[in-house]
Amino acid sequence: MTNLTIVQIPVRIVLVETSHPGNIGAVARAMKTMGLSDLALVAPKQFPSAEADARASGAEDVLAAARLHSTLQHAIADCNFVVGASARLRSLPCPVLDPRECAQSITGRIDVERVAVVMGPEQSGLTNEQMGLCQSLVHIPTAADFASLNVAMATQIICYELRMAANAGVAPAPRRREAPPATAAELEGFHQHLERVLVDAGFIKADHPHTLKLRFRRLFQRADLDRTEVNILRGVLSALDPSRRG
Amino acid sequence: MTNLTIVQIPVRIVLVETSHPGNIGAVARAMKTMGLSDLALVAPKQFPSAEADARASGAEDVLAAARLHSTLQHAIADCNFVVGASARLRSLPCPVLDPRECAQSITGRIDVERVAVVMGPEQSGLTNEQMGLCQSLVHIPTAADFASLNVAMATQIICYELRMAANAGVAPAPRRREAPPATAAELEGFHQHLERVLVDAGFIKADHPHTLKLRFRRLFQRADLDRTEVNILRGVLSALDPSRRG
Repeated sequence: MTNLTIVQIPVRIVLVETSHPGNIGAVARAMKTMGLSDLALVAPKQFPSAEADARASGAEDVLAAARLHSTLQHAIADCNFVVGASARLRSLPCPVLDPRECAQSITGRIDVERVAVVMGPEQSGLTNEQMGLCQSLVHIPTAADFASLNVAMATQIICYELRMAANAGVAPAPRRREAPPATAAELEGFHQHLERVLVDAGFIKADHPHTLKLRFRRLFQRADLDRTEVNILRGVLSALDPSRRG
Repeated sequence: MTNLTIVQIPVRIVLVETSHPGNIGAVARAMKTMGLSDLALVAPKQFPSAEADARASGAEDVLAAARLHSTLQHAIADCNFVVGASARLRSLPCPVLDPRECAQSITGRIDVERVAVVMGPEQSGLTNEQMGLCQSLVHIPTAADFASLNVAMATQIICYELRMAANAGVAPAPRRREAPPATAAELEGFHQHLERVLVDAGFIKADHPHTLKLRFRRLFQRADLDRTEVNILRGVLSALDPSRRG
């Protein structure tokens, strides 16, 4: 049942603006039980903390190695595939996977891509803008009348499914790429370039609500761009940039 | 993905000699998120407890309805199928299931049988004698070097698998679209528009080999565009079209 040769699962867990330090400790323990160790913390309310250490209960090494970041962008800058946890099935046209589908998708990628799963703040979850930085969303099915899943519990379920997928040796063939997948930083560079050109062309306003920008992000996330494609698209933007014309 | 008509999953969770009242509260919350409400407590160290209420965090009703028993035999007296959670793969000649197999086995029975899942004390787990009262064992796979799964986390995983099994058979939701998928003709119109603008901008030559055009076609095929998105992209092309500038 268990393949003991698979010890570590190289997936980063990113906790965004966690309020309760106990939850950070419980997440570290949840990760370590399933063989994950790469923890990133974005602007936690309190860290390090004795409460986090207490709840880690043997996973203090994961806490000690956790990296602190001021923004989500920074925490995922080197990642190629970013999955955001969503408590609600929102109206955004973006793939929403259950934890099992999510684990299968990630397991097919981890040999060649750097993967992160992002967990939002306890009360509010990820903002639309933060979800806009994700290529995919994971939603954990719950009872209809009580969806109040603790963030460490949610992380435990996701890590458990990663362990189950790793043990199953499930390795669906990844899409054959002609170039390495784009990193989050490369994608962000493209989107900022696109937004600037669209503002210069008068297509969107600089202070416009983010709906259209988010829409473009979703659209190109679904396209799962590689580095060459990002460079080509940026070449197109430069060629069409109205601010570069006489 | 979620079948909202399945609200309750009629499976009892039995906690045997739980030491930390916080874990009892966390178990109640874990159960309620997945649609379970039948909690039985065998000789808990402390119950009721303010700490249990705090960790229940909205599942105080499950705690209030919990029944107290002095022995495991009593807690499962009315059950037809009893599964014991085991942290170790013991030598007992009893079927050991992973949580998914366990959930499938239970889901096939709950219409006609009364089912309980038994979780042992935090430190020691179920005794051999207590496991002898179970028809089956469930073992949650963990990392080889850190199997220290909290009892509430283990309950969460088992209840999550019960929820997944209950929801199974329901077709996964397709990507939620805000508009109908684009037709082949609409896509073709977009690609011809794109190619004309790129030629006008000097980015590609009209008699250029088709490599780059094909690349754009593959890229936007992967994005699985809807009609609104095609219209937005054509709006962008019109806004950036160099032949329309003064």
